[in-house]
Amino acid sequence: MPQIDARPRSNRMISIGDPREARAIIRAGEYTRQTAGIAPEYVQGNLCILPKALALDFAAFCQRNPKPCPLIGMGSPGDPTLPDLGNLDIRTDLPRYRVFKDGRPIDEPTDIRNYWSDDLVTFVLGCSMSFELPMRLAGIRLQHIERDTVVPMYRTSIDCVPAGPFAGGMVVSMRPLTPADAIRAVQVTSRFPAVHGAPVHIGLPEAIGVCDLGRPDFGDPPEMDEGLLPVFWACGVTPQVVIESAKPSICITHFPGSMLITDRLNASLAAF
Amino acid sequence: MPQIDARPRSNRMISIGDPREARAIIRAGEYTRQTAGIAPEYVQGNLCILPKALALDFAAFCQRNPKPCPLIGMGSPGDPTLPDLGNLDIRTDLPRYRVFKDGRPIDEPTDIRNYWSDDLVTFVLGCSMSFELPMRLAGIRLQHIERDTVVPMYRTSIDCVPAGPFAGGMVVSMRPLTPADAIRAVQVTSRFPAVHGAPVHIGLPEAIGVCDLGRPDFGDPPEMDEGLLPVFWACGVTPQVVIESAKPSICITHFPGSMLITDRLNASLAAF
Repeated sequence: MPQIDARPRSNRMISIGDPREARAIIRAGEYTRQTAGIAPEYVQGNLCILPKALALDFAAFCQRNPKPCPLIGMGSPGDPTLPDLGNLDIRTDLPRYRVFKDGRPIDEPTDIRNYWSDDLVTFVLGCSMSFELPMRLAGIRLQHIERDTVVPMYRTSIDCVPAGPFAGGMVVSMRPLTPADAIRAVQVTSRFPAVHGAPVHIGLPEAIGVCDLGRPDFGDPPEMDEGLLPVFWACGVTPQVVIESAKPSICITHFPGSMLITDRLNASLAAF
Repeated sequence: MPQIDARPRSNRMISIGDPREARAIIRAGEYTRQTAGIAPEYVQGNLCILPKALALDFAAFCQRNPKPCPLIGMGSPGDPTLPDLGNLDIRTDLPRYRVFKDGRPIDEPTDIRNYWSDDLVTFVLGCSMSFELPMRLAGIRLQHIERDTVVPMYRTSIDCVPAGPFAGGMVVSMRPLTPADAIRAVQVTSRFPAVHGAPVHIGLPEAIGVCDLGRPDFGDPPEMDEGLLPVFWACGVTPQVVIESAKPSICITHFPGSMLITDRLNASLAAF
Protein backbone atom coordinates (compact mmCIF):
# COMPACT_ATOMS: atom_id res chain seq x y z
CA MET A 1 0.00 0.00 0.00
CA PRO A 2 1.41 3.45 -0.85
CA GLN A 3 2.39 5.91 1.87
CA ILE A 4 -0.20 8.53 2.65
CA ASP A 5 0.82 12.04 1.70
CA ALA A 6 -0.40 13.94 4.74
CA ARG A 7 1.41 17.18 3.89
CA PRO A 8 -0.91 20.06 3.20
CA ARG A 9 -0.57 20.85 -0.47
CA SER A 10 -2.72 23.87 -0.17
CA ASN A 11 -4.45 25.95 2.45
CA ARG A 12 -6.94 27.21 -0.06
CA MET A 13 -9.72 25.04 1.40
CA ILE A 14 -9.77 26.50 4.88
CA SER A 15 -12.20 29.31 4.21
CA ILE A 16 -14.26 27.64 1.52
CA GLY A 17 -17.99 27.61 2.15
CA ASP A 18 -19.18 26.69 -1.34
CA PRO A 19 -19.31 22.94 -2.07
CA ARG A 20 -18.96 23.49 -5.85
CA GLU A 21 -15.77 25.47 -5.40
CA ALA A 22 -14.41 22.88 -2.95
CA ARG A 23 -15.08 20.00 -5.33
CA ALA A 24 -13.41 21.88 -8.21
CA ILE A 25 -10.22 22.21 -6.16
CA ILE A 26 -10.38 18.54 -5.14
CA ARG A 27 -11.10 17.45 -8.72
CA ALA A 28 -8.00 19.32 -9.88
CA GLY A 29 -5.92 17.27 -7.42
CA GLU A 30 -5.04 20.34 -5.37
CA TYR A 31 -6.41 19.09 -2.07
CA THR A 32 -6.04 15.52 -0.73
CA ARG A 33 -6.76 15.80 2.98
CA GLN A 34 -9.75 15.62 5.31
CA THR A 35 -12.94 17.50 4.56
CA ALA A 36 -14.05 18.38 8.12
CA GLY A 37 -14.77 22.09 8.31
CA ILE A 38 -15.05 22.59 4.55
CA ALA A 39 -18.43 23.94 3.38
CA PRO A 40 -19.78 23.15 6.86
CA GLU A 41 -23.39 24.00 6.04
CA TYR A 42 -23.51 21.26 3.41
CA VAL A 43 -24.01 17.51 3.72
CA GLN A 44 -20.89 15.36 3.52
CA GLY A 45 -21.34 11.69 2.72
CA ASN A 46 -19.63 8.35 3.25
CA LEU A 47 -18.84 6.63 -0.03
CA CYS A 48 -19.28 2.98 -0.90
CA ILE A 49 -18.91 1.66 -4.44
CA LEU A 50 -19.74 -2.01 -5.12
CA PRO A 51 -20.10 -4.38 -8.08
CA LYS A 52 -23.58 -4.49 -9.60
CA ALA A 53 -24.04 -8.13 -8.55
CA LEU A 54 -23.98 -7.05 -4.88
CA ALA A 55 -25.79 -3.73 -5.27
CA LEU A 56 -29.36 -4.98 -4.78
CA ASP A 57 -28.39 -6.80 -1.57
CA PHE A 58 -26.57 -3.72 -0.29
CA ALA A 59 -29.59 -1.50 -1.11
CA ALA A 60 -31.72 -3.94 0.91
CA PHE A 61 -29.18 -3.86 3.75
CA CYS A 62 -29.41 -0.05 3.87
CA GLN A 63 -33.23 -0.15 3.72
CA ARG A 64 -33.32 -2.61 6.63
CA ASN A 65 -30.74 -0.76 8.71
CA PRO A 66 -31.47 2.93 8.16
CA LYS A 67 -29.83 4.12 11.37
CA PRO A 68 -26.28 2.87 10.64
CA CYS A 69 -26.77 3.02 6.83
CA PRO A 70 -28.79 6.15 5.94
CA LEU A 71 -28.77 6.13 2.14
CA ILE A 72 -28.72 9.71 0.79
CA GLY A 73 -27.63 8.91 -2.77
CA MET A 74 -27.54 5.96 -5.13
CA GLY A 75 -25.99 5.92 -8.58
CA SER A 76 -27.05 3.96 -11.62
CA PRO A 77 -24.77 1.08 -12.71
CA GLY A 78 -21.68 2.46 -14.47
CA ASP A 79 -22.77 6.08 -14.00
CA PRO A 80 -20.27 8.19 -12.00
CA THR A 81 -22.67 11.12 -11.60
CA LEU A 82 -25.13 11.72 -8.78
CA PRO A 83 -27.34 14.59 -9.97
CA ASP A 84 -29.42 14.59 -6.75
CA LEU A 85 -26.34 15.51 -4.73
CA GLY A 86 -24.73 18.03 -7.10
CA ASN A 87 -22.92 18.36 -10.39
CA LEU A 88 -20.23 15.87 -9.44
CA ASP A 89 -18.08 13.02 -10.68
CA ILE A 90 -17.66 10.35 -8.04
CA ARG A 91 -14.35 9.24 -9.64
CA THR A 92 -12.52 12.49 -8.96
CA ASP A 93 -14.44 14.59 -6.44
CA LEU A 94 -13.23 13.09 -3.16
CA PRO A 95 -9.79 14.02 -1.84
CA ARG A 96 -8.73 10.40 -1.33
CA TYR A 97 -10.20 6.92 -1.67
CA ARG A 98 -9.60 3.40 -0.40
CA VAL A 99 -9.76 0.49 -2.84
CA PHE A 100 -10.40 -3.05 -1.55
CA LYS A 101 -10.09 -6.30 -3.46
CA ASP A 102 -11.65 -9.40 -1.88
CA GLY A 103 -11.93 -7.45 1.38
CA ARG A 104 -8.28 -6.39 1.57
CA PRO A 105 -7.11 -2.78 1.03
CA ILE A 106 -4.89 -2.50 -2.04
CA ASP A 107 -4.68 1.22 -2.82
CA GLU A 108 -5.39 4.70 -1.44
CA PRO A 109 -5.53 6.85 -4.60
CA THR A 110 -6.64 10.47 -5.00
CA ASP A 111 -8.89 9.56 -7.90
CA ILE A 112 -10.40 6.26 -9.06
CA ARG A 113 -10.60 6.77 -12.81
CA ASN A 114 -8.36 3.70 -13.28
CA TYR A 115 -10.67 1.53 -11.19
CA TRP A 116 -14.01 2.72 -12.56
CA SER A 117 -16.07 0.38 -14.75
CA ASP A 118 -19.59 -0.06 -16.11
CA ASP A 119 -20.12 -2.73 -13.47
CA LEU A 120 -19.89 -0.38 -10.46
CA VAL A 121 -22.75 1.14 -8.44
CA THR A 122 -22.26 4.12 -6.09
CA PHE A 123 -23.88 4.45 -2.68
CA VAL A 124 -23.58 7.61 -0.56
CA LEU A 125 -24.50 7.39 3.13
CA GLY A 126 -25.22 10.25 5.49
CA CYS A 127 -22.70 10.88 8.26
CA SER A 128 -22.70 12.35 11.74
CA MET A 129 -21.07 15.62 10.64
CA SER A 130 -24.54 16.72 9.55
CA PHE A 131 -25.95 16.40 13.05
CA GLU A 132 -22.93 17.48 15.05
CA LEU A 133 -23.15 21.05 13.77
CA PRO A 134 -26.84 21.38 14.78
CA MET A 135 -25.96 19.89 18.20
CA ARG A 136 -23.22 22.47 18.69
CA LEU A 137 -25.52 25.25 17.53
CA ALA A 138 -27.96 24.03 20.20
CA GLY A 139 -25.26 24.59 22.81
CA ILE A 140 -24.34 20.92 23.31
CA ARG A 141 -20.65 20.47 24.15
CA LEU A 142 -19.01 17.67 22.17
CA GLN A 143 -15.88 16.42 23.90
CA HIS A 144 -14.09 14.98 20.85
CA ILE A 145 -14.43 18.30 19.03
CA GLU A 146 -13.33 20.40 22.01
CA ARG A 147 -10.30 18.12 22.53
CA ASP A 148 -9.60 17.62 18.81
CA THR A 149 -9.74 13.82 19.11
CA VAL A 150 -11.58 11.20 17.03
CA VAL A 151 -15.01 10.25 18.39
CA PRO A 152 -14.81 6.83 20.14
CA MET A 153 -16.56 3.98 18.31
CA TYR A 154 -17.48 0.52 19.61
CA ARG A 155 -18.61 -2.80 18.17
CA THR A 156 -21.88 -3.83 19.87
CA SER A 157 -24.07 -6.89 20.40
CA ILE A 158 -26.86 -5.21 18.38
CA ASP A 159 -27.26 -7.33 15.24
CA CYS A 160 -27.99 -5.60 11.96
CA VAL A 161 -30.81 -7.07 9.87
CA PRO A 162 -28.92 -9.11 7.25
CA ALA A 163 -29.33 -8.93 3.46
CA GLY A 164 -27.57 -11.42 1.19
CA PRO A 165 -23.88 -11.56 2.19
CA PHE A 166 -24.17 -8.39 4.29
CA ALA A 167 -24.52 -9.10 8.03
CA GLY A 168 -22.87 -8.22 11.31
CA GLY A 169 -23.06 -6.21 14.51
CA MET A 170 -23.83 -2.51 14.62
CA VAL A 171 -20.93 -0.16 15.33
CA VAL A 172 -21.83 2.89 17.42
CA SER A 173 -20.19 6.22 18.13
CA MET A 174 -20.35 7.56 21.68
CA ARG A 175 -20.51 11.12 22.95
CA PRO A 176 -20.31 11.74 26.73
CA LEU A 177 -23.00 14.29 27.63
CA THR A 178 -24.54 15.86 30.71
CA PRO A 179 -28.08 14.56 31.31
CA ALA A 180 -29.55 17.89 30.15
CA ASP A 181 -27.44 17.84 27.00
CA ALA A 182 -28.37 14.18 26.43
CA ILE A 183 -32.05 15.07 26.41
CA ARG A 184 -31.45 18.01 24.08
CA ALA A 185 -29.28 15.79 21.85
CA VAL A 186 -32.17 13.30 21.47
CA GLN A 187 -34.37 16.17 20.36
CA VAL A 188 -31.86 17.69 17.95
CA THR A 189 -30.70 14.46 16.28
CA SER A 190 -34.26 13.12 15.94
CA ARG A 191 -34.70 15.85 13.35
CA PHE A 192 -32.09 14.14 11.16
CA PRO A 193 -33.23 10.58 10.36
CA ALA A 194 -31.20 10.77 7.12
CA VAL A 195 -27.94 11.04 9.07
CA HIS A 196 -28.23 8.33 11.77
CA GLY A 197 -31.10 10.11 13.57
CA ALA A 198 -31.81 9.70 17.28
CA PRO A 199 -29.42 7.77 19.58
CA VAL A 200 -29.73 3.97 19.65
CA HIS A 201 -28.76 3.71 23.31
CA ILE A 202 -28.04 5.77 26.39
CA GLY A 203 -26.49 5.21 29.77
CA LEU A 204 -25.90 1.43 30.07
CA PRO A 205 -23.04 0.33 27.79
CA GLU A 206 -23.08 -3.31 29.00
CA ALA A 207 -26.63 -3.72 27.71
CA ILE A 208 -25.32 -3.39 24.14
CA GLY A 209 -22.17 -5.42 24.70
CA VAL A 210 -19.79 -2.51 25.32
CA CYS A 211 -17.76 -3.58 28.35
CA ASP A 212 -15.01 -0.96 28.57
CA LEU A 213 -15.68 2.58 27.40
CA GLY A 214 -11.96 3.34 27.87
CA ARG A 215 -11.05 0.92 25.05
CA PRO A 216 -12.96 1.87 21.92
CA ASP A 217 -12.66 -0.34 18.83
CA PHE A 218 -12.05 2.75 16.67
CA GLY A 219 -11.19 6.37 17.52
CA ASP A 220 -9.81 7.81 20.75
CA PRO A 221 -10.77 6.92 24.36
CA PRO A 222 -13.28 9.34 25.90
CA GLU A 223 -12.97 10.92 29.34
CA MET A 224 -16.02 9.87 31.33
CA ASP A 225 -15.94 12.67 33.88
CA GLU A 226 -18.42 12.49 36.76
CA GLY A 227 -21.91 13.57 35.81
CA LEU A 228 -21.62 12.49 32.17
CA LEU A 229 -23.78 9.85 30.50
CA PRO A 230 -22.57 7.84 27.50
CA VAL A 231 -24.92 8.47 24.56
CA PHE A 232 -24.62 6.11 21.57
CA TRP A 233 -25.50 6.70 17.93
CA ALA A 234 -25.47 4.20 15.04
CA CYS A 235 -22.22 4.78 13.17
CA GLY A 236 -21.24 4.85 9.52
CA VAL A 237 -18.36 2.48 10.26
CA THR A 238 -21.03 -0.28 10.45
CA PRO A 239 -21.39 -0.71 6.67
CA GLN A 240 -17.59 -0.66 6.26
CA VAL A 241 -17.20 -3.54 8.74
CA VAL A 242 -20.10 -5.43 7.16
CA ILE A 243 -18.72 -4.97 3.65
CA GLU A 244 -15.25 -6.01 4.75
CA SER A 245 -16.59 -9.34 5.99
CA ALA A 246 -18.61 -9.85 2.78
CA LYS A 247 -15.31 -9.65 0.83
CA PRO A 248 -16.61 -8.21 -2.46
CA SER A 249 -14.31 -8.66 -5.48
CA ILE A 250 -13.93 -4.87 -5.54
CA CYS A 251 -15.10 -2.11 -3.20
CA ILE A 252 -14.14 1.55 -3.15
CA THR A 253 -14.77 3.81 -0.15
CA HIS A 254 -13.73 7.29 0.91
CA PHE A 255 -10.43 7.50 2.81
CA PRO A 256 -11.31 8.07 6.50
CA GLY A 257 -12.18 11.74 6.95
CA SER A 258 -12.03 12.49 3.21
CA MET A 259 -15.72 12.62 2.45
CA LEU A 260 -17.88 13.53 -0.51
CA ILE A 261 -18.96 17.18 -0.22
CA THR A 262 -22.47 17.54 -1.68
CA ASP A 263 -24.62 20.51 -2.71
CA ARG A 264 -27.35 19.61 -0.21
CA LEU A 265 -27.70 21.84 2.81
CA ASN A 266 -27.59 19.98 6.13
CA ALA A 267 -30.85 21.77 6.92
CA SER A 268 -32.46 20.09 3.90
CA LEU A 269 -32.07 16.73 5.64
CA ALA A 270 -34.05 17.85 8.68
CA ALA A 271 -37.38 16.04 9.01
CA PHE A 272 -38.94 19.16 10.52
CA MET B 1 -60.02 -9.98 -16.32
CA PRO B 2 -62.17 -11.83 -13.74
CA GLN B 3 -65.05 -10.06 -12.03
CA ILE B 4 -64.28 -8.71 -8.61
CA ASP B 5 -66.07 -10.47 -5.79
CA ALA B 6 -67.07 -7.51 -3.67
CA ARG B 7 -69.50 -9.42 -1.47
CA PRO B 8 -68.42 -9.55 2.14
CA ARG B 9 -67.49 -13.14 2.89
CA SER B 10 -67.10 -12.44 6.53
CA ASN B 11 -67.57 -9.67 9.02
CA ARG B 12 -65.00 -11.16 11.32
CA MET B 13 -62.48 -8.45 10.47
CA ILE B 14 -64.45 -5.47 11.66
CA SER B 15 -63.29 -5.50 15.24
CA ILE B 16 -59.82 -6.91 14.72
CA GLY B 17 -57.00 -4.87 16.22
CA ASP B 18 -54.20 -7.47 16.03
CA PRO B 19 -52.35 -7.59 12.70
CA ARG B 20 -51.29 -11.22 13.21
CA GLU B 21 -54.87 -12.34 13.66
CA ALA B 22 -55.99 -10.29 10.66
CA ARG B 23 -53.31 -11.81 8.40
CA ALA B 24 -54.24 -15.34 9.54
CA ILE B 25 -57.86 -14.76 8.44
CA ILE B 26 -56.70 -13.27 5.12
CA ARG B 27 -54.20 -16.11 4.57
CA ALA B 28 -57.01 -18.63 5.06
CA GLY B 29 -58.91 -16.92 2.21
CA GLU B 30 -61.70 -15.81 4.55
CA TYR B 31 -61.42 -12.08 3.84
CA THR B 32 -60.90 -10.54 0.40
CA ARG B 33 -61.94 -6.89 0.78
CA GLN B 34 -60.37 -3.59 1.75
CA THR B 35 -58.16 -3.28 4.81
CA ALA B 36 -59.06 0.27 5.93
CA GLY B 37 -60.00 0.23 9.59
CA ILE B 38 -58.42 -3.16 10.33
CA ALA B 39 -55.68 -3.08 13.00
CA PRO B 40 -55.70 0.72 12.70
CA GLU B 41 -52.73 1.26 15.00
CA TYR B 42 -50.48 -0.72 12.66
CA VAL B 43 -48.72 0.27 9.45
CA GLN B 44 -50.36 -0.83 6.20
CA GLY B 45 -48.22 -0.89 3.09
CA ASN B 46 -48.52 -0.63 -0.67
CA LEU B 47 -47.15 -3.70 -2.43
CA CYS B 48 -44.99 -3.83 -5.53
CA ILE B 49 -43.31 -7.01 -6.74
CA LEU B 50 -40.92 -6.80 -9.69
CA PRO B 51 -38.47 -9.04 -11.58
CA LYS B 52 -34.95 -9.05 -10.17
CA ALA B 53 -33.57 -7.43 -13.34
CA LEU B 54 -35.55 -4.25 -12.53
CA ALA B 55 -35.22 -4.34 -8.75
CA LEU B 56 -31.99 -2.34 -8.44
CA ASP B 57 -33.39 0.46 -10.62
CA PHE B 58 -36.62 0.49 -8.62
CA ALA B 59 -34.68 0.62 -5.34
CA ALA B 60 -32.80 3.63 -6.75
CA PHE B 61 -36.08 5.21 -7.85
CA CYS B 62 -37.45 4.89 -4.30
CA GLN B 63 -34.22 6.27 -2.81
CA ARG B 64 -34.36 9.28 -5.13
CA ASN B 65 -38.08 9.93 -4.60
CA PRO B 66 -38.68 9.20 -0.92
CA LYS B 67 -41.82 11.32 -0.64
CA PRO B 68 -43.94 9.43 -3.21
CA CYS B 69 -42.04 6.14 -2.69
CA PRO B 70 -41.23 5.69 1.00
CA LEU B 71 -39.67 2.23 1.15
CA ILE B 72 -40.57 0.49 4.42
CA GLY B 73 -39.68 -3.07 3.40
CA MET B 74 -37.63 -4.84 0.79
CA GLY B 75 -37.48 -8.59 0.25
CA SER B 76 -34.57 -10.68 -0.97
CA PRO B 77 -34.87 -12.18 -4.48
CA GLY B 78 -37.21 -15.17 -4.43
CA ASP B 79 -37.94 -14.80 -0.71
CA PRO B 80 -41.64 -14.24 0.09
CA THR B 81 -40.98 -13.34 3.74
CA LEU B 82 -40.36 -9.87 5.19
CA PRO B 83 -39.20 -10.49 8.76
CA ASP B 84 -38.81 -6.75 9.48
CA LEU B 85 -42.53 -6.25 8.96
CA GLY B 86 -43.85 -9.36 10.68
CA ASN B 87 -44.13 -13.13 10.38
CA LEU B 88 -45.75 -12.98 6.96
CA ASP B 89 -45.88 -14.55 3.53
CA ILE B 90 -46.30 -11.95 0.81
CA ARG B 91 -47.92 -14.57 -1.50
CA THR B 92 -50.99 -15.09 0.67
CA ASP B 93 -51.27 -12.33 3.27
CA LEU B 94 -53.03 -9.61 1.26
CA PRO B 95 -56.77 -9.87 0.61
CA ARG B 96 -56.41 -9.35 -3.13
CA TYR B 97 -53.69 -8.59 -5.68
CA ARG B 98 -53.33 -7.20 -9.17
CA VAL B 99 -51.03 -8.97 -11.64
CA PHE B 100 -49.65 -7.06 -14.64
CA LYS B 101 -47.83 -8.48 -17.67
CA ASP B 102 -45.99 -6.01 -19.91
CA GLY B 103 -47.86 -3.19 -18.15
CA ARG B 104 -51.37 -4.62 -18.71
CA PRO B 105 -53.52 -6.04 -15.88
CA ILE B 106 -54.20 -9.74 -16.40
CA ASP B 107 -55.52 -11.04 -13.08
CA GLU B 108 -56.86 -9.99 -9.67
CA PRO B 109 -56.30 -13.09 -7.55
CA THR B 110 -56.65 -13.51 -3.78
CA ASP B 111 -53.23 -15.15 -3.55
CA ILE B 112 -50.22 -15.16 -5.87
CA ARG B 113 -48.73 -18.58 -5.20
CA ASN B 114 -49.16 -19.46 -8.87
CA TYR B 115 -47.26 -16.34 -9.98
CA TRP B 116 -44.42 -16.47 -7.46
CA SER B 117 -40.89 -17.33 -8.65
CA ASP B 118 -37.27 -17.13 -7.53
CA ASP B 119 -36.86 -14.16 -9.84
CA LEU B 120 -39.22 -11.82 -7.94
CA VAL B 121 -38.31 -9.07 -5.44
CA THR B 122 -40.84 -7.54 -3.05
CA PHE B 123 -41.06 -3.84 -2.20
CA VAL B 124 -43.41 -2.45 0.45
CA LEU B 125 -44.09 1.29 0.48
CA GLY B 126 -45.59 3.33 3.29
CA CYS B 127 -49.05 4.80 2.69
CA SER B 128 -51.05 7.77 3.89
CA MET B 129 -53.23 5.70 6.23
CA SER B 130 -50.34 5.90 8.71
CA PHE B 131 -50.50 9.69 8.86
CA GLU B 132 -54.25 10.17 8.51
CA LEU B 133 -54.93 8.61 11.89
CA PRO B 134 -52.44 10.92 13.68
CA MET B 135 -53.98 13.89 11.82
CA ARG B 136 -57.45 12.94 13.02
CA LEU B 137 -56.17 12.39 16.55
CA ALA B 138 -54.78 15.94 16.33
CA GLY B 139 -58.29 17.19 15.61
CA ILE B 140 -57.82 17.79 11.89
CA ARG B 141 -61.03 17.20 9.90
CA LEU B 142 -60.47 15.13 6.76
CA GLN B 143 -63.27 15.65 4.26
CA HIS B 144 -62.92 12.37 2.35
CA ILE B 145 -63.19 10.40 5.57
CA GLU B 146 -66.15 12.40 6.91
CA ARG B 147 -67.96 12.00 3.57
CA ASP B 148 -66.79 8.41 2.96
CA THR B 149 -65.31 9.25 -0.44
CA VAL B 150 -61.91 8.43 -1.96
CA VAL B 151 -59.29 11.12 -1.46
CA PRO B 152 -58.82 13.11 -4.73
CA MET B 153 -55.51 12.50 -6.52
CA TYR B 154 -53.93 14.51 -9.34
CA ARG B 155 -51.11 14.07 -11.83
CA THR B 156 -48.71 17.03 -11.50
CA SER B 157 -45.95 18.79 -13.40
CA ILE B 158 -43.47 17.81 -10.65
CA ASP B 159 -41.01 15.40 -12.27
CA CYS B 160 -39.75 12.45 -10.26
CA VAL B 161 -36.00 11.85 -10.35
CA PRO B 162 -35.68 8.99 -12.88
CA ALA B 163 -33.83 5.68 -12.38
CA GLY B 164 -33.39 3.27 -15.28
CA PRO B 165 -36.78 2.74 -16.97
CA PHE B 166 -38.65 4.36 -14.07
CA ALA B 167 -39.61 7.99 -14.73
CA GLY B 168 -42.65 10.22 -14.74
CA GLY B 169 -44.61 12.93 -12.96
CA MET B 170 -45.48 12.84 -9.29
CA VAL B 171 -49.07 12.04 -8.37
CA VAL B 172 -50.38 13.89 -5.31
CA SER B 173 -53.33 13.44 -3.00
CA MET B 174 -55.17 16.57 -1.84
CA ARG B 175 -56.97 17.31 1.39
CA PRO B 176 -58.93 20.59 1.72
CA LEU B 177 -58.10 22.11 5.11
CA THR B 178 -58.72 25.30 7.05
CA PRO B 179 -55.54 27.41 7.31
CA ALA B 180 -55.17 26.48 10.99
CA ASP B 181 -55.58 22.77 10.21
CA ALA B 182 -53.16 23.11 7.29
CA ILE B 183 -50.46 24.42 9.61
CA ARG B 184 -51.14 21.65 12.14
CA ALA B 185 -51.14 19.07 9.31
CA VAL B 186 -47.64 20.19 8.26
CA GLN B 187 -46.49 19.66 11.84
CA VAL B 188 -48.15 16.27 12.27
CA THR B 189 -47.16 14.74 8.92
CA SER B 190 -43.58 16.00 9.19
CA ARG B 191 -43.22 13.43 11.96
CA PHE B 192 -43.80 10.65 9.41
CA PRO B 193 -41.14 10.87 6.68
CA ALA B 194 -41.55 7.08 6.15
CA VAL B 195 -45.14 7.55 4.94
CA HIS B 196 -44.95 10.50 2.50
CA GLY B 197 -44.04 13.01 5.23
CA ALA B 198 -44.80 16.73 5.00
CA PRO B 199 -46.93 18.15 2.16
CA VAL B 200 -45.22 18.85 -1.16
CA HIS B 201 -47.42 21.86 -1.95
CA ILE B 202 -50.08 24.09 -0.50
CA GLY B 203 -52.53 26.66 -1.80
CA LEU B 204 -51.64 27.20 -5.48
CA PRO B 205 -52.62 24.16 -7.57
CA GLU B 206 -51.66 25.78 -10.91
CA ALA B 207 -48.04 26.02 -9.75
CA ILE B 208 -47.80 22.22 -9.85
CA GLY B 209 -49.82 21.78 -13.03
CA VAL B 210 -53.19 21.04 -11.39
CA CYS B 211 -55.67 23.17 -13.33
CA ASP B 212 -59.05 21.93 -12.08
CA LEU B 213 -59.41 20.64 -8.54
CA GLY B 214 -62.94 19.50 -9.41
CA ARG B 215 -61.60 16.94 -11.86
CA PRO B 216 -59.13 14.68 -10.08
CA ASP B 217 -57.25 12.03 -12.08
CA PHE B 218 -58.06 9.42 -9.44
CA GLY B 219 -60.55 9.36 -6.52
CA ASP B 220 -63.58 11.58 -5.94
CA PRO B 221 -63.92 15.37 -6.49
CA PRO B 222 -63.43 17.42 -3.32
CA GLU B 223 -65.71 20.21 -2.16
CA MET B 224 -63.59 23.35 -1.93
CA ASP B 225 -65.83 25.27 0.47
CA GLU B 226 -64.88 28.89 1.18
CA GLY B 227 -62.08 29.24 3.66
CA LEU B 228 -60.39 25.95 2.74
CA LEU B 229 -56.90 25.62 1.28
CA PRO B 230 -55.87 22.70 -0.93
CA VAL B 231 -52.97 20.83 0.74
CA PHE B 232 -51.05 18.32 -1.40
CA TRP B 233 -49.07 15.26 -0.36
CA ALA B 234 -46.94 12.95 -2.51
CA CYS B 235 -49.08 9.90 -3.26
CA GLY B 236 -48.40 6.17 -3.44
CA VAL B 237 -50.13 6.04 -6.82
CA THR B 238 -46.95 7.63 -8.24
CA PRO B 239 -44.92 4.39 -8.32
CA GLN B 240 -47.89 2.54 -9.84
CA VAL B 241 -48.11 5.03 -12.70
CA VAL B 242 -44.34 4.98 -13.16
CA ILE B 243 -44.20 1.16 -13.18
CA GLU B 244 -47.10 0.96 -15.62
CA SER B 245 -45.20 3.08 -18.13
CA ALA B 246 -42.01 1.01 -17.61
CA LYS B 247 -44.00 -2.10 -18.71
CA PRO B 248 -42.13 -4.79 -16.73
CA SER B 249 -42.61 -8.36 -17.97
CA ILE B 250 -44.38 -9.08 -14.66
CA CYS B 251 -45.47 -6.85 -11.79
CA ILE B 252 -47.72 -7.68 -8.85
CA THR B 253 -49.32 -5.01 -6.66
CA HIS B 254 -52.00 -4.93 -3.98
CA PHE B 255 -55.57 -4.51 -5.25
CA PRO B 256 -56.59 -0.89 -4.52
CA GLY B 257 -57.51 -0.64 -0.84
CA SER B 258 -56.38 -4.19 -0.05
CA MET B 259 -53.10 -3.45 1.62
CA LEU B 260 -50.45 -5.43 3.48
CA ILE B 261 -51.12 -5.23 7.23
CA THR B 262 -47.78 -5.25 9.07
CA ASP B 263 -46.74 -5.74 12.70
CA ARG B 264 -45.15 -2.29 12.89
CA LEU B 265 -47.01 0.30 14.93
CA ASN B 266 -47.73 3.55 13.08
CA ALA B 267 -46.08 5.27 16.02
CA SER B 268 -42.84 3.38 15.29
CA LEU B 269 -42.55 5.28 11.99
CA ALA B 270 -42.61 8.67 13.71
CA ALA B 271 -39.31 10.49 13.42
CA PHE B 272 -39.88 12.05 16.84
